[in-house]
Amino acid sequence: MVAKKSEVIVRYAETDAQGVVHHATYPIWFEEGRSDFLRQIGTPYSEWERMGYFVVVADLSLRYLAPAYYEDQLVVETTLQRLKKRLIEFSYRICRGDEVIVQGSSRHLIVGPDKQPCALDGDFFARLNQLLEEQQPS
Amino acid sequence: MVAKKSEVIVRYAETDAQGVVHHATYPIWFEEGRSDFLRQIGTPYSEWERMGYFVVVADLSLRYLAPAYYEDQLVVETTLQRLKKRLIEFSYRICRGDEVIVQGSSRHLIVGPDKQPCALDGDFFARLNQLLEEQQPS
Amino acid sequence: MVAKKSEVIVRYAETDAQGVVHHATYPIWFEEGRSDFLRQIGTPYSEWERMGYFVVVADLSLRYLAPAYYEDQLVVETTLQRLKKRLIEFSYRICRGDEVIVQGSSRHLIVGPDKQPCALDGDFFARLNQLLEEQQPS
Amino acid sequence: MVAKKSEVIVRYAETDAQGVVHHATYPIWFEEGRSDFLRQIGTPYSEWERMGYFVVVADLSLRYLAPAYYEDQLVVETTLQRLKKRLIEFSYRICRGDEVIVQGSSRHLIVGPDKQPCALDGDFFARLNQLLEEQQPS
Repeated sequence: MVAKKSEVIVRYAETDAQGVVHHATYPIWFEEGRSDFLRQIGTPYSEWERMGYFVVVADLSLRYLAPAYYEDQLVVETTLQRLKKRLIEFSYRICRGDEVIVQGSSRHLIVGPDKQPCALDGDFFARLNQLLEEQQPS
Repeated sequence: MVAKKSEVIVRYAETDAQGVVHHATYPIWFEEGRSDFLRQIGTPYSEWERMGYFVVVADLSLRYLAPAYYEDQLVVETTLQRLKKRLIEFSYRICRGDEVIVQGSSRHLIVGPDKQPCALDGDFFARLNQLLEEQQPS
Repeated sequence: MVAKKSEVIVRYAETDAQGVVHHATYPIWFEEGRSDFLRQIGTPYSEWERMGYFVVVADLSLRYLAPAYYEDQLVVETTLQRLKKRLIEFSYRICRGDEVIVQGSSRHLIVGPDKQPCALDGDFFARLNQLLEEQQPS
Repeated sequence: MVAKKSEVIVRYAETDAQGVVHHATYPIWFEEGRSDFLRQIGTPYSEWERMGYFVVVADLSLRYLAPAYYEDQLVVETTLQRLKKRLIEFSYRICRGDEVIVQGSSRHLIVGPDKQPCALDGDFFARLNQLLEEQQPS
């Protein structure tokens, strides 16, 4: 399984009146983890959409272990758990130093320009697998 | 000038670590004020987009007079200041009871499906003016 | 189990470039469902915080069944699944007419002003249970 | 006048149904510009709050010149226009390569832990001015 790390510095707008990061911010950081994962392996998601593949979220779960604060420097570790032609699964760990503060997972379906479920075509799927094989083990 | 009122209850996600509503929330409430203004006069903005008219923000200004808090019940007063075929201007007052807490204004251009500036066609423009004339004075 | 309904009209700011509501918007609507649930039974969450009880999210899961669009009128059905002195669980269904578009659940811990886990005191816990018993069956 | 540059990559959550960055995202990037400005000169805003100085937005204005898109790499140029003991002014340019896409300005007041307007104390004000003098001309 390939994993990639992305850095996030907490924005003031991401905090709430409890003085901590609002819990609905983490799904956005997970999404950024996915975006950055795809950029790092060489296939930015904006290219997927130009090819007519829209990745939509089917399931999302999060476990909140500790709060984060404004200006915290966090690392989002994004792991591709499964890649099939119609389904993609990721897991995430958001860390502050050695401490895991939030972990979670998401499942995604592929839809076409008509927003109906579809499958990645064979060539693109093969290219993705090729890019993944070229990554350093994590 | 036609004005309309919309109610907002402050969401927890709209607060920040200072314990007050984050300042970037107010442009969203202004936008909701515009949306609700158009719904109230009988021409929802989603219909504009289906007709191929996309209203984009050209200028925005806000003055922050007092903070708002979670669960505050606020009223957004949205006034149409100017309606031309290529340009729309609104002003806003966000009030808690008798107190104005934020005021502002925005200017908007019309763009077409190609995202290039365009003009509202004569029939639609006439219909908008008709709808505005039918409103009760504010 | 007591359930309450809250209405939401989709804001433009809640959509994304796929033309649908962004998936990180739903946790905010769940939170609004909880806020409105507590307001409807007569114990607004802002009062909880004034008493020194801060409810934090421990777990959150969502299943996305269908997209929502700008200006959709949605109903958030919030059900209190469990109320203990240290733990609260809710489930949610977000509906457009008869169609469930998103469902989910959340678990919450109570923390005190020092942000350490604590228990609701006996009197407040009894009052909550009293308020819940007074609700109409859903 | 001291200016600092910060990089932003557009997040999917920051786009809207027009396929572009939602206009309420830019005030958040301005705020990040300010945060990063203060970090770069050596006085992170989280330290200000620990000292009991809360910077609140009094006025904000934005001019939108061109849209931005998901995964665009943007630069926020933040210029400190005025620093007084009770008032701070910044201006901003958000650029994609050589193109300015959004520009704006903001004025800020200092409030104390009681949320009442106050002045920066003489020592901290002198230290800020010292830090600013040490910066490279922009």
